[in-house]
Amino acid sequence: MCRLLAYIGSRVSLEGLLFQPEHSLVVQSYQPREMLSGVVNADGFGVGWYDLQRNNCPFIYKNTLPIWNDINLPSLSSYVESENILAYVRSATTGQALDFSNSQPFVYDNLLCIHNGRIDKFRQTLYRAIRSKLSNKIYNWINGSTDSEHIFAMVLNYLLENPGKSIEQALHLSLIELKELAQEFQTDVLANLVINDGKKIVASRYATKLPAPSLYWLKNAVNFPNSVIIASEPLFNGDWNACPENSIISVGEDCEIRIEQI
Amino acid sequence: MCRLLAYIGSRVSLEGLLFQPEHSLVVQSYQPREMLSGVVNADGFGVGWYDLQRNNCPFIYKNTLPIWNDINLPSLSSYVESENILAYVRSATTGQALDFSNSQPFVYDNLLCIHNGRIDKFRQTLYRAIRSKLSNKIYNWINGSTDSEHIFAMVLNYLLENPGKSIEQALHLSLIELKELAQEFQTDVLANLVINDGKKIVASRYATKLPAPSLYWLKNAVNFPNSVIIASEPLFNGDWNACPENSIISVGEDCEIRIEQI
Amino acid sequence: MCRLLAYIGSRVSLEGLLFQPEHSLVVQSYQPREMLSGVVNADGFGVGWYDLQRNNCPFIYKNTLPIWNDINLPSLSSYVESENILAYVRSATTGQALDFSNSQPFVYDNLLCIHNGRIDKFRQTLYRAIRSKLSNKIYNWINGSTDSEHIFAMVLNYLLENPGKSIEQALHLSLIELKELAQEFQTDVLANLVINDGKKIVASRYATKLPAPSLYWLKNAVNFPNSVIIASEPLFNGDWNACPENSIISVGEDCEIRIEQI
Amino acid sequence: MCRLLAYIGSRVSLEGLLFQPEHSLVVQSYQPREMLSGVVNADGFGVGWYDLQRNNCPFIYKNTLPIWNDINLPSLSSYVESENILAYVRSATTGQALDFSNSQPFVYDNLLCIHNGRIDKFRQTLYRAIRSKLSNKIYNWINGSTDSEHIFAMVLNYLLENPGKSIEQALHLSLIELKELAQEFQTDVLANLVINDGKKIVASRYATKLPAPSLYWLKNAVNFPNSVIIASEPLFNGDWNACPENSIISVGEDCEIRIEQI
Repeated sequence: MCRLLAYIGSRVSLEGLLFQPEHSLVVQSYQPREMLSGVVNADGFGVGWYDLQRNNCPFIYKNTLPIWNDINLPSLSSYVESENILAYVRSATTGQALDFSNSQPFVYDNLLCIHNGRIDKFRQTLYRAIRSKLSNKIYNWINGSTDSEHIFAMVLNYLLENPGKSIEQALHLSLIELKELAQEFQTDVLANLVINDGKKIVASRYATKLPAPSLYWLKNAVNFPNSVIIASEPLFNGDWNACPENSIISVGEDCEIRIEQI
Repeated sequence: MCRLLAYIGSRVSLEGLLFQPEHSLVVQSYQPREMLSGVVNADGFGVGWYDLQRNNCPFIYKNTLPIWNDINLPSLSSYVESENILAYVRSATTGQALDFSNSQPFVYDNLLCIHNGRIDKFRQTLYRAIRSKLSNKIYNWINGSTDSEHIFAMVLNYLLENPGKSIEQALHLSLIELKELAQEFQTDVLANLVINDGKKIVASRYATKLPAPSLYWLKNAVNFPNSVIIASEPLFNGDWNACPENSIISVGEDCEIRIEQI
Repeated sequence: MCRLLAYIGSRVSLEGLLFQPEHSLVVQSYQPREMLSGVVNADGFGVGWYDLQRNNCPFIYKNTLPIWNDINLPSLSSYVESENILAYVRSATTGQALDFSNSQPFVYDNLLCIHNGRIDKFRQTLYRAIRSKLSNKIYNWINGSTDSEHIFAMVLNYLLENPGKSIEQALHLSLIELKELAQEFQTDVLANLVINDGKKIVASRYATKLPAPSLYWLKNAVNFPNSVIIASEPLFNGDWNACPENSIISVGEDCEIRIEQI
Repeated sequence: MCRLLAYIGSRVSLEGLLFQPEHSLVVQSYQPREMLSGVVNADGFGVGWYDLQRNNCPFIYKNTLPIWNDINLPSLSSYVESENILAYVRSATTGQALDFSNSQPFVYDNLLCIHNGRIDKFRQTLYRAIRSKLSNKIYNWINGSTDSEHIFAMVLNYLLENPGKSIEQALHLSLIELKELAQEFQTDVLANLVINDGKKIVASRYATKLPAPSLYWLKNAVNFPNSVIIASEPLFNGDWNACPENSIISVGEDCEIRIEQI
């Protein structure tokens, strides 16, 4: 279990999003409220953002320390401003190393991805099975050893082999493929993913065996007008909407919410 | 607030003491029960031990990561065996840097020291006042910037200026001096300290304004015969004794408990 | 011995300054050419910059890893653009801890400072002597234990006690005071400092016992028009000027060079 | 290129082996003499050792910092004593992450392995090819992404599939298989490996395209009687023997040297 955050909308400072909310991601790292397992999210963190005025390449910053102990993040957060931001704090699945290569967000070209969830007994079940289905390009792209990176690799593999398909379609079909693999190998998958290409956010709330990890969205919050925030836990009091279980939610620059069932 | 542990008695493996108890120091790092402030102890950790068959020089190992994320500790803990062990997990006081120099245990010659507590508004109150009272030798010995290291420096200063005095006396008088300073500068002090010279453990449970942080001792636990364990929280079920508030407890190689009121 | 870099002029990307020159600071970290002592500069690094369009608060990023091993710096460097940049790679003086608190740049309000050099036997000589001369405000501001931070503290102390004085004057008089202290305590000082307030760069090349560490400046380099670069070693081929020993060089937004002898 | 060290013989302290020689592994980390590529070995380090009086499980300690910056190693090295020690300082191949999972020694049951060398363009050539030949057990055992770990995985795979075969045979045949793979994928391999099972050391000096990285051995050095040391560079003056290129050298508890050509 990790805690996720995604933002799209008017340009905001990273500081305002990461530090100022009363139940910010920083607070969620040491005092989360809705974890299905684990008690803290202190196994590193990461942020990713875009500066579309320049190009569509994402920028990332990550560390293996607890988010509250990173001495650079306060200064960096006051410097960075963006219309598209992802952030997460990690609770590492037992046995998955605290390596930078295992730290999120993962990046591929203009895509950023963060994942909250897990594949049960990943190494003994889907690890080799997923890899064997990948093209050499994506196989060789993988840097770490987490289930998270392998799920994103499935999405990337689909996108590369099916040019013209959308992130939503790629995510949808990857989750279905993952479900079939999970049945075959008698394991379970929790897959709350957020994928951003700089222009839209596509997120899933998904479990092969319910309940799925929590996921909320909020449009036009008082302190964040013209925006949509998606988060594992509400960042502050407000009319947060629970994303339906086993659905995909996507939001573009128009801040319109589209939800489809998986 | 940190969580402390001290052991004296029959030779044990560090692994047995640090990892195996059901409410071990590792568990206390992410799920402590009796903290006066703070919610986790994930700002680093440290252990110290002696090998008296060789000499009375302590060995130490410390890191700024959460104790559960140190990849070397499991192997190291299965290697180290000792009759005298200190260990602690840190919850850093806001504003005190996550530096190795601020990590405990502190070492001076054959002495080890760990501290749970704090001096309120340390920098603005007793920081310079304490330093100004120190001999050049101890002034120059200080490496970090924590209240903890400065309290230990007071004890060391007393010991060096009063040869022949015991650690108990030095700790006792330093706490009284600290109380006077605290009154003068209108601040408060919480000072649970453990000091070890390889042959005995001397601990204080102390606050200028009660309650003092929790501190327990247990003699001859089932899994640790011929020993005394002192700890911020009981490591497992058993007849743990609360140390009296504002007292000094000392234990030698005979495992006899001596308690004196401050 | 560390390696320094300061830039003032037209807005540039941090990447262009830090990574692209053939003898960049990154190369100087593992293969420096003009070190008076030490062989590599792999004990951490730091950068500082301003964004004057917003305000005059500096931003900093630092780490205790070798600069070539920081996984965030490439992304961060491609994001940051500035008209005022400081950077350094550290070769830690033996006995001075690899702590974040000892990492440069040091920050005080709108001022940034980096230092290449050392006070010989600092702990045994000028450590306490310098501290005893500081106001409480600056005394309490010091976070680490390096000679570098203490020299900057002297400059700050002078500035606070003499409102209206310039950085040049403060640096000049601090170096003279340092020289007197060094004579009194029979030690030597190497003090190449760079101080930036966002609008100008003030640097010294100074030693109580020559030679002073190397320091160069270059105006309007081909790839950096409308700029002045100051550096411990030339970053690329060009008509670099050696700063005179025991002098202060300052450069404002007009890129005019002013040099005065100490 | 990394720098390697292996020791078998009378019980010695780790400190004596790692720190005291005039051209120790610590010196080789910042000032190596015989590197085929790279200039420093500052991308982490690792040590492994056995305590055969207890069992044949190896102990390891590793870090991603330069060896000279690890604050725990001096204390740990003065504590550890062993008859079987491996150590290495890393110069990471470009593109291979500075992760703990990529840090050596690698451990499998009672075996330790360190590697100096590289597979050219590993990701694009032998990465998937090697993995596809591995049993599930060894495939799933791999934690990192280095060529080094994959070469060791080939040796392990051979040993598990051919019970009763020696480490020498496994290493020999793995290098031949590697040579064939290298030809097929038109790449080159440098493979100085050291594998220890606690009772003997087996090392290779190997390149598909000569020269191979340097490797030396010395028996019964003045300060290390009853021992054999194998090292990338001589640790001190003495009659060091260059291992023949493309050979395997093995040493048991009797300190007898056996060399076979590959």
